[in-house]
Amino acid sequence: MLINSKRFLRRIEKINNLKSNYKKAGINRIALTNEDKRARDIIINWMKSLKLTIKIDNIGNIFGLYNYNNKTKPILLGSHIDSVKNGGKYDGALGVVGALEVIQTLIEKNKIEESIGLAVFTNEEGVRFAPDMMGSWSFTKKENIKKIHKIKDINSITIKEALKKINYLGKEKQLFFRPKRFLELHIEQGPILHNNNKDIGIVKGVQAITWLKISLFGKSNHAGTTPLKNRHDPMMVFGKIHNYINSLSTKKNNQLITIGSVSVQPNQINVIANKIEFSVDMRNPKDDKLNVVEKKIKKEIKKLCLQKNIKFKIKKLVKFTSVKFDHKLNSIIKYHSEKLKYSNMDLFSGAGHDAQMLAKICPTSMIFVPSIKGISHDKREHTKYKNLIKGVNLLYSVTKNLLRN
Amino acid sequence: MLINSKRFLRRIEKINNLKSNYKKAGINRIALTNEDKRARDIIINWMKSLKLTIKIDNIGNIFGLYNYNNKTKPILLGSHIDSVKNGGKYDGALGVVGALEVIQTLIEKNKIEESIGLAVFTNEEGVRFAPDMMGSWSFTKKENIKKIHKIKDINSITIKEALKKINYLGKEKQLFFRPKRFLELHIEQGPILHNNNKDIGIVKGVQAITWLKISLFGKSNHAGTTPLKNRHDPMMVFGKIHNYINSLSTKKNNQLITIGSVSVQPNQINVIANKIEFSVDMRNPKDDKLNVVEKKIKKEIKKLCLQKNIKFKIKKLVKFTSVKFDHKLNSIIKYHSEKLKYSNMDLFSGAGHDAQMLAKICPTSMIFVPSIKGISHDKREHTKYKNLIKGVNLLYSVTKNLLRN
Repeated sequence: MLINSKRFLRRIEKINNLKSNYKKAGINRIALTNEDKRARDIIINWMKSLKLTIKIDNIGNIFGLYNYNNKTKPILLGSHIDSVKNGGKYDGALGVVGALEVIQTLIEKNKIEESIGLAVFTNEEGVRFAPDMMGSWSFTKKENIKKIHKIKDINSITIKEALKKINYLGKEKQLFFRPKRFLELHIEQGPILHNNNKDIGIVKGVQAITWLKISLFGKSNHAGTTPLKNRHDPMMVFGKIHNYINSLSTKKNNQLITIGSVSVQPNQINVIANKIEFSVDMRNPKDDKLNVVEKKIKKEIKKLCLQKNIKFKIKKLVKFTSVKFDHKLNSIIKYHSEKLKYSNMDLFSGAGHDAQMLAKICPTSMIFVPSIKGISHDKREHTKYKNLIKGVNLLYSVTKNLLRN
Repeated sequence: MLINSKRFLRRIEKINNLKSNYKKAGINRIALTNEDKRARDIIINWMKSLKLTIKIDNIGNIFGLYNYNNKTKPILLGSHIDSVKNGGKYDGALGVVGALEVIQTLIEKNKIEESIGLAVFTNEEGVRFAPDMMGSWSFTKKENIKKIHKIKDINSITIKEALKKINYLGKEKQLFFRPKRFLELHIEQGPILHNNNKDIGIVKGVQAITWLKISLFGKSNHAGTTPLKNRHDPMMVFGKIHNYINSLSTKKNNQLITIGSVSVQPNQINVIANKIEFSVDMRNPKDDKLNVVEKKIKKEIKKLCLQKNIKFKIKKLVKFTSVKFDHKLNSIIKYHSEKLKYSNMDLFSGAGHDAQMLAKICPTSMIFVPSIKGISHDKREHTKYKNLIKGVNLLYSVTKNLLRN
């Protein structure tokens, strides 16, 4: 055995604070709430017991650094501990508690002369404050921090106020150190490893993501008394747009498209709609392919709306370009996975992760473990203990190797 | 001049009780509320001043009858006074106040030896209690009245309780008299007369109406991590069904179809939907054509859902067969319209009306006056005064003619 798997499992249970209502509500460790603070405090105590140098930056990211001085470039491991509403047990927490376990094992079993560290990034989920991956984004991007501090939740509480309230508004500035490498262990959240019966996913990169919000405007009128030629029914156009968008989602070009949200006004059986809003979530491993699809959708919406004299608005809510993880790091992960006799495969991440932000500033990659049936962001999210342990053991082996090189 | 148009307009304003918030909220005379009671009381006072025999039946329909005994078959005029939420000024009220004006003018100007009467039907709109056209439906249909009395609003108040509360639970039984003829004056609610610049619509009948509620069931999952082959996305099928349904709505077969309401669960940008519910409002002057369309829709939904392994449910919410109004009555209306030099045209009613219930028990028809821009069920509903007066004058002329025949 490489890591102390009992200690690791005990810690992940402690972080998750499983109460009697877990079965009903899942994990609710929303960013910068008291639940988040509670988990942060526990992690800081563990870091202290390892005598790590603890640093907190101006967006609340927590860093626990070993052999740290202001010139070192540590090997950085980590993830996030915030969850979505009614979320799962391991999404985020695995990567943080796993990294802590790896660092503790390295310290206990080895003479570490290099610098190494653990990162706990703030608000990866973006449920309370948008955008998601906020902590890692802020850390790596020299964006005006004052602007970021002013982002508000739906109750008009700013990030800065929320950070102050739980006492996690730190003094360190953005990118106050530059990691040598970054590694994130995470559950897959999709079904690919589960379907292929693999222990380990070696993540080649993260898909490009575009979110559009499309609004179609018509005129409300009586469903029974308004002749066809007098109608400005946006629903008629929505059907065509909808079908066109679906037709662009094919296995051949690895294009995923999801229309997950639709709202209609006034939404009555016998009233022609005056407004329809719907979302389009588009993902592709290749930026250029995604851009082509986005352009096609916009062109077709314009054409169909003009034909039917329906006004429209297209708003881009999110645009993340694809990220390629470090090829060399991935070959090291592959080597150690084979050595440990863990079955593995390469894959792309469909979801966004803190690692994709870190990839801008240092060689970065991710290790995935399977999610049973691919379920995530739900209390039914689960990964078998043995798979969690394999993930942490692999992270340990790879990190140990990196320290020496 | 035939009727007393000043008196008529004063009365319709009195019924409408226009307060300062009318411009914001329109008319809110929901069935069996205090506002409804207030208008009912006013009408009963007017009936009393004409020495009409006042009868109230067990669903709260008010009848004001002249030369009435328990053997007479009166010529009956009337409509409803309840409104939708934020409704318009003349929807319903025109037909009641207009009929009162006609009866008063007939009494004042003529020696009436025949029986004539005014009906104010309960809850035509069906906003608070379903179904709509409830009063006229109950009057004409020997349905078990105990069952009807148990119908509840969303606060679990029964019709019977609501009738008692405003003191309008009458003693007369269903169909306690049988009218000789029934005539209803109403605003068109659609744009046909307005578009054709006509004063009067002679209503050939009421379209058949079917309302369906269709539910599609899928499985929620992450929009970015779930491969196409693992998806059970009901949105993909909804697009196809949606397009197919729209394609069946053509001018050629007079088929109107409206998808006015759509709800999606969980309705999040990055989550595949697990449930979509949408409504289909279908109307056609011909029952057989509507039935064919309904069958086609059901068949196609079944086919498309089977193809994509999506479960579905189809629920029929409403089914009204078409109603043909009395041809002879319509030719009398036409004759008097021409004589008065009111421009007129024949049309079908897209909306439901009390007259369609009365058509089951006696020769029945309707007179429409134009709604500006076809707007109805909205505070912007309006008909020019001169058009209201033309409608009432025509109702007077036709009724006078009917009394003598």
